Amino acid sequence: MEMYLKTGRQPVKPYENNRARMLISCPDGPGIVAAVSRFLHEHGANIVQSDQYTMDPEGGMFFMRIEFDLEELDTHLASLKADFADIADKFEMQWNIYQLSRKKKLAIFVSKEDHCLVELLWQWQAGDLDAEISMVISNHPDMKEYVESFGIPYYHTPVTPETKQEAVQKQLEIVGDKVDLIILARYMQIVPPALIEPYRNRIINIHHSFLPAFVGGKPYAQAYERGVKIIGATAHYVTEELDGGPIIEQDVQRVSHRDDVNELKRIGRTIERVVLARAVKWHIEDRILVHQNKTVVFN
Amino acid sequence: MEMYLKTGRQPVKPYENNRARMLISCPDGPGIVAAVSRFLHEHGANIVQSDQYTMDPEGGMFFMRIEFDLEELDTHLASLKADFADIADKFEMQWNIYQLSRKKKLAIFVSKEDHCLVELLWQWQAGDLDAEISMVISNHPDMKEYVESFGIPYYHTPVTPETKQEAVQKQLEIVGDKVDLIILARYMQIVPPALIEPYRNRIINIHHSFLPAFVGGKPYAQAYERGVKIIGATAHYVTEELDGGPIIEQDVQRVSHRDDVNELKRIGRTIERVVLARAVKWHIEDRILVHQNKTVVFN
Amino acid sequence: MEMYLKTGRQPVKPYENNRARMLISCPDGPGIVAAVSRFLHEHGANIVQSDQYTMDPEGGMFFMRIEFDLEELDTHLASLKADFADIADKFEMQWNIYQLSRKKKLAIFVSKEDHCLVELLWQWQAGDLDAEISMVISNHPDMKEYVESFGIPYYHTPVTPETKQEAVQKQLEIVGDKVDLIILARYMQIVPPALIEPYRNRIINIHHSFLPAFVGGKPYAQAYERGVKIIGATAHYVTEELDGGPIIEQDVQRVSHRDDVNELKRIGRTIERVVLARAVKWHIEDRILVHQNKTVVFN
Amino acid sequence: MEMYLKTGRQPVKPYENNRARMLISCPDGPGIVAAVSRFLHEHGANIVQSDQYTMDPEGGMFFMRIEFDLEELDTHLASLKADFADIADKFEMQWNIYQLSRKKKLAIFVSKEDHCLVELLWQWQAGDLDAEISMVISNHPDMKEYVESFGIPYYHTPVTPETKQEAVQKQLEIVGDKVDLIILARYMQIVPPALIEPYRNRIINIHHSFLPAFVGGKPYAQAYERGVKIIGATAHYVTEELDGGPIIEQDVQRVSHRDDVNELKRIGRTIERVVLARAVKWHIEDRILVHQNKTVVFN
Repeated sequence: MEMYLKTGRQPVKPYENNRARMLISCPDGPGIVAAVSRFLHEHGANIVQSDQYTMDPEGGMFFMRIEFDLEELDTHLASLKADFADIADKFEMQWNIYQLSRKKKLAIFVSKEDHCLVELLWQWQAGDLDAEISMVISNHPDMKEYVESFGIPYYHTPVTPETKQEAVQKQLEIVGDKVDLIILARYMQIVPPALIEPYRNRIINIHHSFLPAFVGGKPYAQAYERGVKIIGATAHYVTEELDGGPIIEQDVQRVSHRDDVNELKRIGRTIERVVLARAVKWHIEDRILVHQNKTVVFN
Repeated sequence: MEMYLKTGRQPVKPYENNRARMLISCPDGPGIVAAVSRFLHEHGANIVQSDQYTMDPEGGMFFMRIEFDLEELDTHLASLKADFADIADKFEMQWNIYQLSRKKKLAIFVSKEDHCLVELLWQWQAGDLDAEISMVISNHPDMKEYVESFGIPYYHTPVTPETKQEAVQKQLEIVGDKVDLIILARYMQIVPPALIEPYRNRIINIHHSFLPAFVGGKPYAQAYERGVKIIGATAHYVTEELDGGPIIEQDVQRVSHRDDVNELKRIGRTIERVVLARAVKWHIEDRILVHQNKTVVFN
Repeated sequence: MEMYLKTGRQPVKPYENNRARMLISCPDGPGIVAAVSRFLHEHGANIVQSDQYTMDPEGGMFFMRIEFDLEELDTHLASLKADFADIADKFEMQWNIYQLSRKKKLAIFVSKEDHCLVELLWQWQAGDLDAEISMVISNHPDMKEYVESFGIPYYHTPVTPETKQEAVQKQLEIVGDKVDLIILARYMQIVPPALIEPYRNRIINIHHSFLPAFVGGKPYAQAYERGVKIIGATAHYVTEELDGGPIIEQDVQRVSHRDDVNELKRIGRTIERVVLARAVKWHIEDRILVHQNKTVVFN
Repeated sequence: MEMYLKTGRQPVKPYENNRARMLISCPDGPGIVAAVSRFLHEHGANIVQSDQYTMDPEGGMFFMRIEFDLEELDTHLASLKADFADIADKFEMQWNIYQLSRKKKLAIFVSKEDHCLVELLWQWQAGDLDAEISMVISNHPDMKEYVESFGIPYYHTPVTPETKQEAVQKQLEIVGDKVDLIILARYMQIVPPALIEPYRNRIINIHHSFLPAFVGGKPYAQAYERGVKIIGATAHYVTEELDGGPIIEQDVQRVSHRDDVNELKRIGRTIERVVLARAVKWHIEDRILVHQNKTVVFN
């Protein structure tokens, strides 16, 4: 297996060493773009890509994503950040800079349904998800060998009504603050609030319906019952409200009266896979900003 | 205007004189297709098109749509129907035969938003909706001249809190049992139960959301608030439950964080137009069977 | 008719008086964004929206669209442009500034098929196409009364093999340099080179296929013949090469073996309408930049 | 690995032992449906599902797919077929009966690109492709271990300019007449005519473009060059004409100027996977009839 199932871990490409992405949210006002681009230019950075969006021009919010190159980024980043504080303060910015050479670390939670995990691993292996998969955590042992064949640690934390508290505690220990993003790849358990808080806007769930329709555990049965002509899936950040967090991506597929619940599930699996993988990719590429309960996605 | 705005009333084409469509629903069981096709064959009818569907093979429901030609249909239809009663009884069928030469009569209800009405009239005029538009009823006078320029009677029944009861009464009188299908083309008033009962499964409403998400009067505002990435529209038969009737057709369009409520409305108008027109076309062509709260659409 | 069919001519909204859009293309290089945003900031302009894109980061092309507000724009625009010349020269920019208060003038060419024209007029009337429709030109008289009922001049220039040269000459005179954009709304005649040259990247054609498949005059017949499962339409700028110009927008619809050529045409009409209207809207909103034979669309 | 990577080989379900599917093509004429359904009824068969389609009602072709149950099918099938010959002769039918208990045997050809193969194996393993994968044949050794971990024989037949003839000969021997369907899962070599003839309408290729656009070996480069706004993939039966055989299924995805050739390839891979898997599923389920160079797909 090892021969074929090469890892998806990508080497840092030369240009990535000097490239970074900056995400900014702040109240809108005059001069923001000028201040930021001037700042970067004066610090020797070259803007490779930039996107901005103003939500509600009159007194609204400003969002920006900038990808830039800076020679000897590692050496200069600390001072760049320190110098930027003035501008950030002036415009009341929430901001962050991410280096491309620091691959994000992912933890994937999965239950019995394996299609989303398989898709993520396949895309990762094909070089399409440029991140490090640090661990897979599951309440079932089924995928252990498969996951480990990629060289990824697999943690089996069985969940029963009695051991639930214990399992959650163990998961918190395993994950700790070791990762940058948690992916619930059809993990059919409730995520403990103790995990949500430190990973605010960094836990992506795939819900197997076109939210806000069909919240909860049996969306395909509900969709069949209601007789909808299109089904969908939704990737969203996890909040304390069940299936209520900021939506990142959705997609749909046409169905007909001929499709029973099992057929809806089958069709849905491909939508789920694709939608989750897109959301994860965008998060990894720092394309998503969250404001209140919505996302701005620069893609 | 008359010169250009020719009517959409299509002449009966020669082949339509001898063509009919049969819709059948019954509990599933052996021998139905054989019995029906044999019956038609022995009565000299030639099946041009046939679709069938069995919902849940084990002890479920059987649905069938047959399009057939029969020489001198007008003369033979009564006896054909009488003869069919035996088979229908045996299999406990609900059934109907529709002659293509008897164009369905439509009543269109509309409020201020004109896009769905304009679309229906344009498709009708282009020859794509093979029916007779018997009347347009509105609580506003705005579209009167436009509608009348097509040679279609326009009834203005103003609705105010005080005159509501009176308006409903007047509408009931105007429509009576004169039409075969009522279309609510963004008619923003509640339809009286006195109209629903006699027109069971013969009133099509277009709801401006992807049901069951965003029931009620402000779906685009709700969609914006929730931050969905796809919006939609739903054509359904009207029942006593608001936006809860059998869904005929749905379609969607991708949106982004850049689209505010007005932009969602603008994008939505085209989805609404297209979805409503499809549902009306299918009803006119006898492609829809209703079972419980779902539709079987043979298209 | 006049009562209902109000014009789609929108009044200039107060904010539009001081708003402009700037489109820039130039070879990529460091400092462009900084230079442009600094320039605008120092001239008192506030950037409302900005998009940029670099094609092929290594030694490629840079494209930018900026929407900005400037007090008393009318008074200051000339000097703003003059001052910008330095930056433009330095970066070898092709650039333009468009005031929102100067609505673009459109000429629509149409033949017998009216659906694209009707859609454009309906969207215009609904306030979705913020432009002035200066004229409609046709080789048929059919739509004259309809178009004139919107208060739009209609020019009938019959085209026969004998009068072709004369008709073209007349069209050139009618259009002259009076408009900003020419729309071929299913105008089934070849456009003379004498019109293409002065209106380079300002003539939009709707082709009734998913280009580059099915170039030429009978795309639906070709699509039927080839047995495709999806049909489409393409809006593109007109060049000297038939159906070969830069593609602005495409969309598609699923079809099946049940759809004959006429049904393909019927389904296609709605795709054509929607695709053309989108392309026109984007052009009107200065969202399209052309480079070689491709478009960059900031939408 | 074996623990997790269970085979996708499905046991024959009890109801499948007595179920069969019948595919019929013939010139249209009166009484076909009646004759067939009467025949089946009189032979004790119960029709579970039936679809029919008449191409061009006036003097056209008739297509039918019937799924039926017959007690002790194995015992009665031979006589059923013999008895049906009369009807078949009378209506000049091309016809076939497929037992559900006889799973179709597949051979998959693959080159270096593994995504289509991985998708087929995953869907097979998930129970969505109800067939037997008899072998995988490749001109590369890369996937050997992976494929064999599913218990599927893997044949490596290297192809070089010198060994080409030899490789083809070896492939012909390996495949022989041992399989029911050959799948070219991004097999980038030309299939020898000696294989096409015996497997007429039983070789499915996935072409990585929206045919008939971009025939040949570099469709994504061509799509990028042409600046299309939507890319697609096409599954078709292989004929002697390159990329010219009957189209089974197509699907598309929106792209933008931001997507370079590599990004088009990445997006395209998911379209290819999904489209090929759908076509294979339909073939396995006997849903496809071929007439001239087109398919009738009952799905």
